[in-house]
Amino acid sequence: MEKTSLNETSFAMNMNSSNKQETVCVFGTGDFGRSLGNKMFQCGYSVVFGSRNPELSGLHPKGIEVLSHAEAAKKSDLIIIAIHREHYDFLTQFAEELQGKILVDISNNLKINQYPKSNAEYLAQLVPGAKIVKAFNTISAWALQSGTLDASRQVFVCGDDKESKQRVMDIGRALGLAPVDQGSLMAAKEIENYPLQLFPMWKFPLYLSAILSIFYFVYCVVREIIYPYVHEGRDSTFFLAISIPNRIFPGLALNLLALVYLPGIIAAILQLYRGTKYSRFPNWLDHWMLCRKQLGLVALAFAFLHVMYTLVIPIRHYVRWKFNSRVIEQIKTNKTEHFNPTSFWLRDSYLALGILGFFLFVLLGITSLPSVSNMVNWREFRFVQSKLGYLTLILCTAHTLVFGGKRFLSPSILRWYLPSVYVLTLIIPCTVLVLKFILVMPCFDQPLTKIRQGWERNSKKAQFGNGNTEV
Amino acid sequence: MEKTSLNETSFAMNMNSSNKQETVCVFGTGDFGRSLGNKMFQCGYSVVFGSRNPELSGLHPKGIEVLSHAEAAKKSDLIIIAIHREHYDFLTQFAEELQGKILVDISNNLKINQYPKSNAEYLAQLVPGAKIVKAFNTISAWALQSGTLDASRQVFVCGDDKESKQRVMDIGRALGLAPVDQGSLMAAKEIENYPLQLFPMWKFPLYLSAILSIFYFVYCVVREIIYPYVHEGRDSTFFLAISIPNRIFPGLALNLLALVYLPGIIAAILQLYRGTKYSRFPNWLDHWMLCRKQLGLVALAFAFLHVMYTLVIPIRHYVRWKFNSRVIEQIKTNKTEHFNPTSFWLRDSYLALGILGFFLFVLLGITSLPSVSNMVNWREFRFVQSKLGYLTLILCTAHTLVFGGKRFLSPSILRWYLPSVYVLTLIIPCTVLVLKFILVMPCFDQPLTKIRQGWERNSKKAQFGNGNTEV
Amino acid sequence: MEKTSLNETSFAMNMNSSNKQETVCVFGTGDFGRSLGNKMFQCGYSVVFGSRNPELSGLHPKGIEVLSHAEAAKKSDLIIIAIHREHYDFLTQFAEELQGKILVDISNNLKINQYPKSNAEYLAQLVPGAKIVKAFNTISAWALQSGTLDASRQVFVCGDDKESKQRVMDIGRALGLAPVDQGSLMAAKEIENYPLQLFPMWKFPLYLSAILSIFYFVYCVVREIIYPYVHEGRDSTFFLAISIPNRIFPGLALNLLALVYLPGIIAAILQLYRGTKYSRFPNWLDHWMLCRKQLGLVALAFAFLHVMYTLVIPIRHYVRWKFNSRVIEQIKTNKTEHFNPTSFWLRDSYLALGILGFFLFVLLGITSLPSVSNMVNWREFRFVQSKLGYLTLILCTAHTLVFGGKRFLSPSILRWYLPSVYVLTLIIPCTVLVLKFILVMPCFDQPLTKIRQGWERNSKKAQFGNGNTEV
Repeated sequence: MEKTSLNETSFAMNMNSSNKQETVCVFGTGDFGRSLGNKMFQCGYSVVFGSRNPELSGLHPKGIEVLSHAEAAKKSDLIIIAIHREHYDFLTQFAEELQGKILVDISNNLKINQYPKSNAEYLAQLVPGAKIVKAFNTISAWALQSGTLDASRQVFVCGDDKESKQRVMDIGRALGLAPVDQGSLMAAKEIENYPLQLFPMWKFPLYLSAILSIFYFVYCVVREIIYPYVHEGRDSTFFLAISIPNRIFPGLALNLLALVYLPGIIAAILQLYRGTKYSRFPNWLDHWMLCRKQLGLVALAFAFLHVMYTLVIPIRHYVRWKFNSRVIEQIKTNKTEHFNPTSFWLRDSYLALGILGFFLFVLLGITSLPSVSNMVNWREFRFVQSKLGYLTLILCTAHTLVFGGKRFLSPSILRWYLPSVYVLTLIIPCTVLVLKFILVMPCFDQPLTKIRQGWERNSKKAQFGNGNTEV
Repeated sequence: MEKTSLNETSFAMNMNSSNKQETVCVFGTGDFGRSLGNKMFQCGYSVVFGSRNPELSGLHPKGIEVLSHAEAAKKSDLIIIAIHREHYDFLTQFAEELQGKILVDISNNLKINQYPKSNAEYLAQLVPGAKIVKAFNTISAWALQSGTLDASRQVFVCGDDKESKQRVMDIGRALGLAPVDQGSLMAAKEIENYPLQLFPMWKFPLYLSAILSIFYFVYCVVREIIYPYVHEGRDSTFFLAISIPNRIFPGLALNLLALVYLPGIIAAILQLYRGTKYSRFPNWLDHWMLCRKQLGLVALAFAFLHVMYTLVIPIRHYVRWKFNSRVIEQIKTNKTEHFNPTSFWLRDSYLALGILGFFLFVLLGITSLPSVSNMVNWREFRFVQSKLGYLTLILCTAHTLVFGGKRFLSPSILRWYLPSVYVLTLIIPCTVLVLKFILVMPCFDQPLTKIRQGWERNSKKAQFGNGNTEV
Repeated sequence: MEKTSLNETSFAMNMNSSNKQETVCVFGTGDFGRSLGNKMFQCGYSVVFGSRNPELSGLHPKGIEVLSHAEAAKKSDLIIIAIHREHYDFLTQFAEELQGKILVDISNNLKINQYPKSNAEYLAQLVPGAKIVKAFNTISAWALQSGTLDASRQVFVCGDDKESKQRVMDIGRALGLAPVDQGSLMAAKEIENYPLQLFPMWKFPLYLSAILSIFYFVYCVVREIIYPYVHEGRDSTFFLAISIPNRIFPGLALNLLALVYLPGIIAAILQLYRGTKYSRFPNWLDHWMLCRKQLGLVALAFAFLHVMYTLVIPIRHYVRWKFNSRVIEQIKTNKTEHFNPTSFWLRDSYLALGILGFFLFVLLGITSLPSVSNMVNWREFRFVQSKLGYLTLILCTAHTLVFGGKRFLSPSILRWYLPSVYVLTLIIPCTVLVLKFILVMPCFDQPLTKIRQGWERNSKKAQFGNGNTEV
């Protein structure tokens, strides 16, 4: 925060600084072109705009020239192309002026994969004599104007000419941005798609939890609202606000957490079956493994909601009414509840398991923050995400099991033959834990460890036994 | 954390490393000069101190020479000036020795803008033949000595000579610091002010919330403590500990959150009115927009306090006493409260709205962490901060409205004609939401979108209609 | 997250890119060697493997050659040695081919300090004509294969030849990693130990809290479970789940927080006594000071657990039973509890102090996140960690004192002469606060400030009085 403000002002102060009077040309006086040009000017560059109607533009700060395209192109060997892709073809008329110059493609499209060829590659094809660099498309005009670079300062840069890339990256750094080299111009498509993405890795976890939510919701409505209404004529619709969400959320949290660890188990089984780790996994498994972090964070969000919904229980009117009614009932019938250590034990350990599980869950969430996970080495990362992760899963499963407690097997809890929803939510985590338990047994763990160190069941190499001499 | 410890020890191990036996000279054997010199020595540099009384200094590690200023200056072309600004004039006598050398100004002042000219520029004026670089003033002597670089490792560097800057930045990197180029020597003033700042962007949010707190506090004291005392003689002073803060905090959280979104609305109205986005906003609006993040985080802090104060309600003695009294009352009068689904609905949905609002609020807070916001692109950042932000505001406002529920319009709630404090706190958020609702209607939204893409109502350029060909 | 996926795909797209057709040789076709080779190949490098049985390896992507060691070595001047240290001696036979080449040691050991000499230095000794660079040992094969660089992307690099290091760091950057220069080859041992570390800075805080926990646990079991059983025959074992942890956790949180500030006080006393800040502290004090952050975070974890355990109190069966019994008792005996503002005050202010203390505690935790602390300057960092830290300690101590309230001195609370556990937990924080209070008095604060600015009681330098002219 302070840094931003520092950059801001110091840039302004550098306006007339003399040591980097490099001239940059900008083709196009649209919004982004202007923002970028003005920013470069503020940072000490000499800026020339190329425009179709140079005499009409009166909005530039003093010191910025606006010329015709041809004239502007002569002033600099680095030209920023701030023009929509649809109009790139007009550049062909300046083929001569652009010969050997660095053209910076900053364009974005409106849709992902809008054109078969990326804008930058299309530009390279139109102006074959120029060195094309893709850059700056990830930054917004507003961010350049206001100086509040709160979102990513990363500028992805790619191009086939190393030196041109270097020049563009230097400009990026001078503007207070963080250029990242992405390789050759073939990466341009990826870079052009990047700013159009909206949390691509979060889609699978979010859709999955939406589907699970809807299923659990319908199940709960049938069991907790329709059943009592049919059988007792009781209006329980107010359960929709807190009681039913508080059955869905813990179930989702537990299931999603288990689904974080399931792909690892499937991968282990596949590796054991195939006897090698060098065959590719099926695509769905690969994708699943890559979004485990997001799955885990969505699970944490549901766990957080479950905790909040549970903690407000005692301030709900319904709960107060229910307990007061019970007390009044006890007094009227003169039957007092007895000191019952077993029930206290069950309830207290259920709560304690839940709290400890949630605590570890939060710890996992914190260590997945980029700045924290960047501080730990791989051994520590694996320790936290695997050991502590499984411990969290065990605690949360135990929390649910103890919650069920004696009621688990009792038929009185069935309504229309439907068990409580927590019974359903236990299926996946228990499966995962049982499979994991089997896999850590030496008869499976030892071959798996060997396979993961590079050993292959059907490899000639292994027969020669030199697998161990190499890292 | 581990990284720090790694740097530490490996630096120590490099002490006798031979590959960067570059010599650096330090003028002045004060605390910071010594810390910096010793650190450079540990990192493999050859270090020479220049002192007025070279024979008196016996505290340097073996291998560091202490000479007179003139002699020391001859040993290196890079001299760190570890002397207070007040004594800079004594350097004029060495003008000849310092000719062409790199002088690194590391000084700080005691107050922001203490002198009209920055220390580094003053130095440049005193020793015109030298190349001045400002650096290292943001690092503390203690951090250099102990190696615990927990706070910022950033070293802001500025200077008019590019190569000298590069030399100094290389030293910074070798010391495990993160040098950031800030441009020409004109940035020195800003860099000298930086370490003296104390959360400058937080001042407005904190002062604003202090003023609002005091107003709400007095209001609540009158209504909840003085009124019952005057009318019923009841001692409610214990409300000061929890009940009254728990009316102030949610109000502050809601108001500050609304104030995060108000400047955006004012800006939109201004842009619509002016028909262009290229006129500057008034300064107060600019400043307000730049500290929206801080406003939002202060609001989140109050929301967190509100949540905690609410969750402890059932373990307050007063609350237990009140509810127990009610039960006893009911039994004595033999009037039992009836099953009342409407009241359960109201209370439960009020709680659910609050929890969901707080959940989104926390999400907004997490995405504003620097390392998280650095991972998202602009589209994602805007989605979270604008869409999710408004959803949070809507949920929190609804939470307050449902809290009021039926009591809202009831005159019985007035005390000395004063409504409950939550009624006051609704004014700003409801205004913001109504204005936003008006602005998203197509008749306002379409021209606004055009303006934000660079269109101008009174521009010749727009008349030629080429605004759309350029980015 | 998105960044990772971007890198991934763009790397794949660069596979045939032509602009960095630099050839890299890898000795050894073990798992890590292969992963690294394939990754480099994907990133546009031409890769040649050197193997003992080149004809047997059929697993490499098309385009990667596998040759004999001698032949492979001829293809490139940069050779990655992906062989276990135990087999390094076989390299001596290629001394001629390796003459003048860059050898990259990527090996790790199984134990910290397994060999007296680091692997890289051992390699340098075996092949004296080569330039050895240590790198890549901190990255896991799995991370290279899957592209999920969630944990640290940092690659620590060291070596005696600057240019070789630069070459290796360029490769690291091309692979999407973050190389960090660690100086000369003497740093290799440290770099080799790094990936074997498991939270070294957390050991002291965790062991300390384990010892304290056990002590408090035994104390509580004696006082709260054995005593009631012996005296009243009551079964209170269910206290083990929540009641007793909720006495241990706040105590630990308070003690560990106090222990964060104790070393600073000891250091101040030592400095005052010695009259200088330039003498080294004893090693235990140094280590203690370096792990204060970890101590504080462990304390925060216990505070979090305490908060959760406290908030679930009203939904414990035992607590409901106890309060219901009391109400029923009151009705039967017809004795109603009276409105008791003093007790309400005590309880409410105890809760309020706890909440405010926890709030500041969380704030301290957030500012210790690497990405947050990197944004603040030293003045701000000290303000938060010292001023706010002491305020937290004061609030939490006051919270415990008010919790005790009147019961504090009452002998009725003693069981077998043992006071409540919270009395014990107050010893350290009260000591720290008293000492701090003494140290901020001017008679101690003034000399201390002078000492910390570099003044020394027994120094000749100080007698000359020029201490103030230098920074």
